[in-house]
Amino acid sequence: MENIVYLIPAFGVIALLYTFVKSAWVSRQDSGDAKMSTIAKYIAEGAMAFLQAEYKVLTYFVVIACLFLGYLGTVGENSSPVIVVAFIIGAFFSALAGFIGMRIATKANVRTAQAARTSLSRALDVSFGGGAVMGMGVAGLAVLGLGGLFIVFKAMFVGDTYNAEEMERALEVLTGFSLGAESIALFARVGGGIYTKAADVGADLVGKVEAGIPEDDPRNPATIADNVGDNVGDVAGMGADLFGSYVATILATMVLGREITVTDNFGGISPILLPMVIAGLGIIFSMIGTLFVKVKEGGDVQRALNLGNWSSVILTAVASYFVINFILPEESLNLRGFEFSRIDVFYAVLVGLVVGTLMSIITEYYTAMGKRPVMSIVRQSSTGHATTVIGGLAVGMESTVLPILVLAGGIILSYEAAGLYGVAIAAAGMMATTAMQLAIDAFGPIADNAGGIAEMSELPKEVRERTDILDAVGNTTAATGKGFAIASAALTSLALFAAFMGTANITVIDISNARVLAGLFVGGMIPFIFSALAISAVGRAAMAMVEEVRRQFREIPGIMEGTGKPEYDKCVAISTKAAIREMMLPGAIALIVPIVIGFTFGPEVLGGLLAGVTVSGVLMAMFQSNAGGAWDNAKKSFEKGVMINGKMEYKGSDAHKASVTGDTVGDPFKDTSGPSMNILIKLMSIVSLVIAPHIAVHNHESTPALNHEQIKEQTIMPTTSTVKPGNQVMYTALR
Amino acid sequence: MENIVYLIPAFGVIALLYTFVKSAWVSRQDSGDAKMSTIAKYIAEGAMAFLQAEYKVLTYFVVIACLFLGYLGTVGENSSPVIVVAFIIGAFFSALAGFIGMRIATKANVRTAQAARTSLSRALDVSFGGGAVMGMGVAGLAVLGLGGLFIVFKAMFVGDTYNAEEMERALEVLTGFSLGAESIALFARVGGGIYTKAADVGADLVGKVEAGIPEDDPRNPATIADNVGDNVGDVAGMGADLFGSYVATILATMVLGREITVTDNFGGISPILLPMVIAGLGIIFSMIGTLFVKVKEGGDVQRALNLGNWSSVILTAVASYFVINFILPEESLNLRGFEFSRIDVFYAVLVGLVVGTLMSIITEYYTAMGKRPVMSIVRQSSTGHATTVIGGLAVGMESTVLPILVLAGGIILSYEAAGLYGVAIAAAGMMATTAMQLAIDAFGPIADNAGGIAEMSELPKEVRERTDILDAVGNTTAATGKGFAIASAALTSLALFAAFMGTANITVIDISNARVLAGLFVGGMIPFIFSALAISAVGRAAMAMVEEVRRQFREIPGIMEGTGKPEYDKCVAISTKAAIREMMLPGAIALIVPIVIGFTFGPEVLGGLLAGVTVSGVLMAMFQSNAGGAWDNAKKSFEKGVMINGKMEYKGSDAHKASVTGDTVGDPFKDTSGPSMNILIKLMSIVSLVIAPHIAVHNHESTPALNHEQIKEQTIMPTTSTVKPGNQVMYTALR
Repeated sequence: MENIVYLIPAFGVIALLYTFVKSAWVSRQDSGDAKMSTIAKYIAEGAMAFLQAEYKVLTYFVVIACLFLGYLGTVGENSSPVIVVAFIIGAFFSALAGFIGMRIATKANVRTAQAARTSLSRALDVSFGGGAVMGMGVAGLAVLGLGGLFIVFKAMFVGDTYNAEEMERALEVLTGFSLGAESIALFARVGGGIYTKAADVGADLVGKVEAGIPEDDPRNPATIADNVGDNVGDVAGMGADLFGSYVATILATMVLGREITVTDNFGGISPILLPMVIAGLGIIFSMIGTLFVKVKEGGDVQRALNLGNWSSVILTAVASYFVINFILPEESLNLRGFEFSRIDVFYAVLVGLVVGTLMSIITEYYTAMGKRPVMSIVRQSSTGHATTVIGGLAVGMESTVLPILVLAGGIILSYEAAGLYGVAIAAAGMMATTAMQLAIDAFGPIADNAGGIAEMSELPKEVRERTDILDAVGNTTAATGKGFAIASAALTSLALFAAFMGTANITVIDISNARVLAGLFVGGMIPFIFSALAISAVGRAAMAMVEEVRRQFREIPGIMEGTGKPEYDKCVAISTKAAIREMMLPGAIALIVPIVIGFTFGPEVLGGLLAGVTVSGVLMAMFQSNAGGAWDNAKKSFEKGVMINGKMEYKGSDAHKASVTGDTVGDPFKDTSGPSMNILIKLMSIVSLVIAPHIAVHNHESTPALNHEQIKEQTIMPTTSTVKPGNQVMYTALR
Repeated sequence: MENIVYLIPAFGVIALLYTFVKSAWVSRQDSGDAKMSTIAKYIAEGAMAFLQAEYKVLTYFVVIACLFLGYLGTVGENSSPVIVVAFIIGAFFSALAGFIGMRIATKANVRTAQAARTSLSRALDVSFGGGAVMGMGVAGLAVLGLGGLFIVFKAMFVGDTYNAEEMERALEVLTGFSLGAESIALFARVGGGIYTKAADVGADLVGKVEAGIPEDDPRNPATIADNVGDNVGDVAGMGADLFGSYVATILATMVLGREITVTDNFGGISPILLPMVIAGLGIIFSMIGTLFVKVKEGGDVQRALNLGNWSSVILTAVASYFVINFILPEESLNLRGFEFSRIDVFYAVLVGLVVGTLMSIITEYYTAMGKRPVMSIVRQSSTGHATTVIGGLAVGMESTVLPILVLAGGIILSYEAAGLYGVAIAAAGMMATTAMQLAIDAFGPIADNAGGIAEMSELPKEVRERTDILDAVGNTTAATGKGFAIASAALTSLALFAAFMGTANITVIDISNARVLAGLFVGGMIPFIFSALAISAVGRAAMAMVEEVRRQFREIPGIMEGTGKPEYDKCVAISTKAAIREMMLPGAIALIVPIVIGFTFGPEVLGGLLAGVTVSGVLMAMFQSNAGGAWDNAKKSFEKGVMINGKMEYKGSDAHKASVTGDTVGDPFKDTSGPSMNILIKLMSIVSLVIAPHIAVHNHESTPALNHEQIKEQTIMPTTSTVKPGNQVMYTALR
């Protein structure tokens, strides 16, 4: 029975095979005429140039991090320098996932445009096919990496007979994989966010305003950077984000699974195996779900995507019922003496699925055209720039209410079902269909790019109409995808938080302890300074881009006549370097603050810090992303034409100009700082989990059960942590 | 020795005598020519009309709250229906403090203008005299109310021999005073904030834009409402805010003082008396400080104010050293078995003074003209509306960093000094010179109004120059005052938080408990929805005002010719009603959420909620107030003329227009939602403290020390609270 563990990397391999086959299929599609190919080639080259530059800089970071991890692994009692290997593989896989996504997105965009010449059905096939490649690639690499490394580390540290302490070491080392993945994700998301907005502004300010050439004109040196930016932000950024969440969630559940006492057929590690098996099943059912994403000419694309999504979610839910019954024993017991059954674990999975769904629906409501929130901004646009901004800020703040209530309900219900393991498995359940979620998310920017290429290549009007249909659906899926990403980040952070407490040997984080409270305040402030830095960085990076574009117009002969070729790669490099440089400080904050606080004040204060970061980060993520999304669609409402006070308003009116201000304010909110919050809260939790064994509370470790004196001592010092894994026997006995 | 308690209301009476004498002196000053008097009369009448309308509506609220409190007091074990009396007195005193402040401000404004005809020195005397009346009035009413009621309730419930349980009841009943004060403060601050912005926008949109008459023209029905609004927001709002903080801080320290075991000369209640005595001393030394606020013609007004402020702060600090040594015994012991000495308590007072000072300095830096943050917004104004807004948002977010670090440091240091009592006494130390702080704060809007009256009455140029000097200083003191208000609210909330835990019989609030964590999330969300409601309310209230002004222009004959008198009171009433109506929902959230959560989930989850509200509320208060202040001064920079990229920019340029957008976005931030955060977090803590005895954990109350079985039971359930006041004997023994 224990051989089931070998199934897990097999799921990953299946997903990668799918990626390979589907990718080849997309590549075989017609890439259209010479003009289309040329434009697409520029974008693809630019994207690769970005990745190259980014990965080069990241290599330094990886080397430094490896030195630190190697040192920790050598001196730490419960750790091992092998963590360095896990870290490098995690970082490499995350980079690889970004590479796969970017490559397929830059191939699928032009082929979608070409396919749209034939029919909507074929255009959907190609664009969604590209998304599916990305989704399966991310999920496959994650499951292969986690499953494979788990097998290796289990063999290396634990061997055939289960040993709690050695399993702790194996999982601790595995945490390095997640740390590698999430660090790269932070750079990809923040750097990408700064990149795309800097290129956007730079291209517009110099090209459109100063040189007077139209949008997306190939003579503009920054135009490729601009188009690359869309892929960098929406495709690679989202992919890295979800890759990180996916890995972190599974890992956190595994770490918490170690704290569950069971008598099973898997040598006592069934709670550790379960999240990986559910993830594997999610891949298979996501694959099946993609088969439902088909549409006839004039059909409903949104319905097709929903059908695919719901099939995979429902099939995964049903299958997880059987898997849980097969793997877990009837009763499980956690460290706090809390007993739960198999069906409780299944309930927790269901809670996760419901939370994810509700968060997506609420996010869509707050950012959708025609709904009350966006319409309130539209109306306030008629009284000027300031009221538009105020309206959007109010909508963003208001949009936090329902998601927080859903999240709070989800936390309580999943905890009541199966303790902290329940919270983690809820997150794992939600993330199980990540492959499908990502396929749907990545489809949007591919369709968007396809529309741009169709426009630039002057394809017939019906082509643009077809890509517009796909693009409109893509806007909706982008909104729901953001809701899903925030929900997953929040639950993942909580799972990591719980895993951190277990690894650090603390069971209480008491906010009436002054230091913990101070930690909570400082933690709550981190998302504010992180956002401030990200937002200001966009401004500075845009200025660097402006200067480079001006230089090229000045120095390259024949550039305006079309005879001199602009140095696209220089703009890409400038934007990349600026983005990477500007994100060093926020990145350093995320990585260094938990280390400093943890080693200076210990695990309980670090726990307070993490709670502060998570609560404030989730709120700021929702506030910024939803305000930005709502402003964006308020502006789009004017472009479509909208009724205000009984009068139709269109593009070009004063109200529309005010709405453009709102949209511009919202850009760094929704594309830079907002989405970065997700990774910030996860990364800080993972860093804490990695250092947890090194700052763990160590008293009573050799005592199998506490004696009377010790219990008394603990009771009179309620602000320090009290219960240790070593006490497990006692709980079991008392239960 | 115990008679020292009678000194406390005597301090209050002295302050009120000062108020009376100084107020009479201000009234005796020359109120200028007929034109000045008429304008001043309109403003004064409008202010009183506002208070009348506001207090009428608030009467209903007080009646409903009394019914609820009476019910709680009757059914509760540790409470008494007498709390209703305390509540009514608290509400009445708060209202009275608002009345005193408004009346003197509306008298001092015109007299300052007239005094400025003679000299700067006299103008400062009158305007600062008005501020001092307000400051002493607020402090006097607070100390008189708290001290007097404490004497009455002690006699009523405790009698001559100290009894811990009956003292708890007496202090619980006294909490009603603070609840009354803070509820009225919430209405005054939020309602006032909505009022002033609604009147501002309404007067501008219809008067200036539609009717084409200048700013502050008496023909505009909303102009009085506009001028009243300045007093309502800056004078009455700030006064009610600080009155609430002042009372709440002293009270929270008293409640925590009950948990301190001492052998003293005051029947064991010296830790309860101390905060009231320090407050009383603060009044005396504030009075002395006002004597230093003098300036010669051409002298430095800021320096005079600083001298006055520093004298009172340093004198109070020195005096508190002797008072602490006189009142407290050498050693004190708190419930957690933490022992501290007199000098430790003095250190905590110093920490509070330093925190308050640093917060003020940092706030000033982030909102001052010419400093980096404001200059960064100024530069971004040159690229348009959107970048101006983005720049201000980034400044606001960044401005949270240093204050939070200062606050966190203050929490840790004061806690290390003297436990939770130390945190509370730090807040009390900081608030001791509230009378002086408020005098300096209220001086600003008086000088501002004086400038307006001088302008409208066409007084000579040098008059306006003198009031401008005062006004400029007032802008700085407004910024530092906001920093002080936020710091005081934060520390007060923490003191209340600690008092709540003691009264609710819990010693641990464990955020790894899923319900507590859910509470933390929901709590963190409250300031977001509160802000969203407040911001949207400004928009809606402004629309109601616009309609009323349009109606009067349409229906009153001769209004434009100056022969028909506009119905100023109708505008005032409309604005007031709209403000009160719009603030019902946010007010209800602040009052009802803690009650619902407390009674449904118990004190530990409520504690999590309060922690979330406090952290998120402090952050949102800083973010919004400082962003608003920075935008305001960025706009003012253009009005003065400012250098951007080597070129001077002035009023009327495109960059200036962009800065006006920033200022308008910032208006509801800094004058409505931002300052309301202070009261929100305090009020929710006070409501929790009031209901604490009714939701308290009741187990083991009759057991003097826990037996072995009970300790074991508690140890295996670390997520529920464990240590009870009944255990005090045990700690003492173990110590």
